[in-house]
Amino acid sequence: MKPERGPLRVALLGCGTVGSEVVRLLNEQADDLAARVGTPLELAGVAVRRPERVRAGVDPELVTTDAQALVTRDDVDIVVEVIGGIEPARTLILEAMKTGKSVVTANKALLAEDGATLFAAAREYGADLYYEASVAGAIPLLRPLRESLVGDHVHRVLGIVNGTTNYILDQMDSAGAGFNEALEEAQSLGYAEADPTADVEGFDAAAKAAILAQLAFHTPVTAADVHREGITEVSAADVAGAKGMDCVVKLLAICERVPSEDGRNGRGVSVRVYPAMIPRTHPLASVREAYNAVFVEAESAGSLMFYGAGAGGAPTASAVLGDLVAVARNVVGGTPGPVEVTYAKLPVLPMGETVTRYYIHLDVTDEAGVLATVAEEFARHEVSIQAVRQVGLGEEAQLVVVTHRAPDAALSAVVRGLRGLDSVREVASVMRVEGEE
Amino acid sequence: MKPERGPLRVALLGCGTVGSEVVRLLNEQADDLAARVGTPLELAGVAVRRPERVRAGVDPELVTTDAQALVTRDDVDIVVEVIGGIEPARTLILEAMKTGKSVVTANKALLAEDGATLFAAAREYGADLYYEASVAGAIPLLRPLRESLVGDHVHRVLGIVNGTTNYILDQMDSAGAGFNEALEEAQSLGYAEADPTADVEGFDAAAKAAILAQLAFHTPVTAADVHREGITEVSAADVAGAKGMDCVVKLLAICERVPSEDGRNGRGVSVRVYPAMIPRTHPLASVREAYNAVFVEAESAGSLMFYGAGAGGAPTASAVLGDLVAVARNVVGGTPGPVEVTYAKLPVLPMGETVTRYYIHLDVTDEAGVLATVAEEFARHEVSIQAVRQVGLGEEAQLVVVTHRAPDAALSAVVRGLRGLDSVREVASVMRVEGEE
Repeated sequence: MKPERGPLRVALLGCGTVGSEVVRLLNEQADDLAARVGTPLELAGVAVRRPERVRAGVDPELVTTDAQALVTRDDVDIVVEVIGGIEPARTLILEAMKTGKSVVTANKALLAEDGATLFAAAREYGADLYYEASVAGAIPLLRPLRESLVGDHVHRVLGIVNGTTNYILDQMDSAGAGFNEALEEAQSLGYAEADPTADVEGFDAAAKAAILAQLAFHTPVTAADVHREGITEVSAADVAGAKGMDCVVKLLAICERVPSEDGRNGRGVSVRVYPAMIPRTHPLASVREAYNAVFVEAESAGSLMFYGAGAGGAPTASAVLGDLVAVARNVVGGTPGPVEVTYAKLPVLPMGETVTRYYIHLDVTDEAGVLATVAEEFARHEVSIQAVRQVGLGEEAQLVVVTHRAPDAALSAVVRGLRGLDSVREVASVMRVEGEE
Repeated sequence: MKPERGPLRVALLGCGTVGSEVVRLLNEQADDLAARVGTPLELAGVAVRRPERVRAGVDPELVTTDAQALVTRDDVDIVVEVIGGIEPARTLILEAMKTGKSVVTANKALLAEDGATLFAAAREYGADLYYEASVAGAIPLLRPLRESLVGDHVHRVLGIVNGTTNYILDQMDSAGAGFNEALEEAQSLGYAEADPTADVEGFDAAAKAAILAQLAFHTPVTAADVHREGITEVSAADVAGAKGMDCVVKLLAICERVPSEDGRNGRGVSVRVYPAMIPRTHPLASVREAYNAVFVEAESAGSLMFYGAGAGGAPTASAVLGDLVAVARNVVGGTPGPVEVTYAKLPVLPMGETVTRYYIHLDVTDEAGVLATVAEEFARHEVSIQAVRQVGLGEEAQLVVVTHRAPDAALSAVVRGLRGLDSVREVASVMRVEGEE
């Protein structure tokens, strides 16, 4: 048995929506938490920029504007960072670890941009760095990847990791709304920011994809490595086309281990974010509104999915608390938790080498031989066609083509080729198809 | 830093489908596991009843028939039990803990029948008892409940925890098959045993429900406490009726905290297993074939779902390995993991007090006033009707009634009353409706 020790002292950086929820839970669940950790958790200080904005429920005596002093204080054991953004969060986290503190953070931007620096510091100083809340809010996802699947081999992670875009696409699917209309509704309901760029252009999802890929494949991946396409170009016609295929359009974060001819470790990883069709029978298809879900395919465990609220103060705080308890137990036990290792160092492959499937919707002229001309264009780039469907007749003739898996570069070349054909009036819709074959 | 220590020695009890997968993973992933634990994991012995049946890949020198001697050996640190059943598993696990070993088990029957004894022993001897593989195979579910949601308050767990019955019901839904036909197909594909009783009568699901309820509500629940109805009575008409309601029939394991008028802890828990309709928009509705999924509703985290393969050697072994690593890390660190505490000791409420909704399908006579007579029967028992739909005309007249939430006893009384009405030819289908309102 260990000797008894006093309470563990927690410094909180940031006290907005998430931070104030963390304070509330620390107070309300104090007895449960103490029983679980083996010693009480005590708030040592709360660093904020504007003390006058701190909400009720936080002891004013604990509030400080000097975050730097707080994280290096001798009477602080664990630092919880919920400020967000790159700086000053990075400097504060590094300072905290340097002075022996373990860290819980919800900061996806920082982890996706410079996770390597943080992980290296955690290793160097023997500190814990836990960040469950950075991806998919309260959904216990990173811990299963880090711990439960530790004896397994992950092939692929397929996730809906941005609630705003899922809400918009769900509205387009269920209510037949156009993108702008759905975005406005999401904004009026508080699901989308006034400036929705980070969400609708896929930046938020790309940061999370980088974190997931890093964890799943033990390989360094930053947000800049992620191929990213947003949903602003998704049209009502695309969504209707998906329906016709018994599919639904989702903004997916995809992390794949690309197998080599021989070895199982693969020749690299593909990490990408784009709107794609998935079959309605796929578990991800039924993820509605602003929910998040992440589908994991592993060698022994098979297919797993984790589903839940991806954002919001309470769910994020719940994830922070779970991490805080784990870190506190590690501090009490004197054994740091797992440190991210990127020993595999697989290359991130360019998008052109990624293997996917395409759905292509064409307005074609009403003449004999159109299908042959179109098919020839696919053959030229060695893209195999899975199905062709003719919709409409005469002047309204349209072709829907779905391909088998092929390198993205070849598929792009096909689309460019089709645009140049006389018999193709318009390439009305192009979308990748994921989630099966 | 801790002093260096030698390898951790693992005793394996049972070497069937799961056990031999565990051996394979221990060998194949040895380096990864050693890095993760901080010291190698070494197989100290494998206890089996019939040594001649042990598969290739297991060192014959490690095989023994004396499980009792193996679990008490001084050179064993951790015991992995994958024999199943109550005895000798219980005695062996207790012996192991008594001599200071930590235990990983996949034994749902034992945990559901006598978890209290095991948890008490774990507390007494300071041993770890991990059992992720006992519910829902490889799906990381118990660990999130035990650890990630530790600062949260679980309201409800709603799960598809038996793959066999989900396969059968899915076939009935998608192919329009009857129960017997679907069962035969499941048997021919290896999804159902020759004697399918444990699955189709809900015994397997009830054991898992007991484990989940215990964990979610910190309250002792055994399999015998669980209200249990199987799927053998589910007819093609029930499944068609569900379709008409845009619902699907699933065998659900439901664990609910029943709120009292005032306190948040509730006046008891309801733990039950039965086939019920859930809306097709519910995330559980899209769980197809033999997959499992568990839906958790918690105060801060909101709705979470965990999905994956619920059975099979490889997925179960993956869960065992995850636990083994966690336990090994605790041994290395000298800090045991969380021990189940059943401090809440909430009573398990009888089924009659459980609040649910009913779907009732009636063949009625073709005369005026039938609806009034039927409605009166609901009113008599204070059951409020949500919707009534008339199907067919004249001799074929049928009524579909869906109720609001009411105590199960009142709903049963309504059905008994309806059976006694002259204007009701037959109560063709009765099924509970879960998953929303």
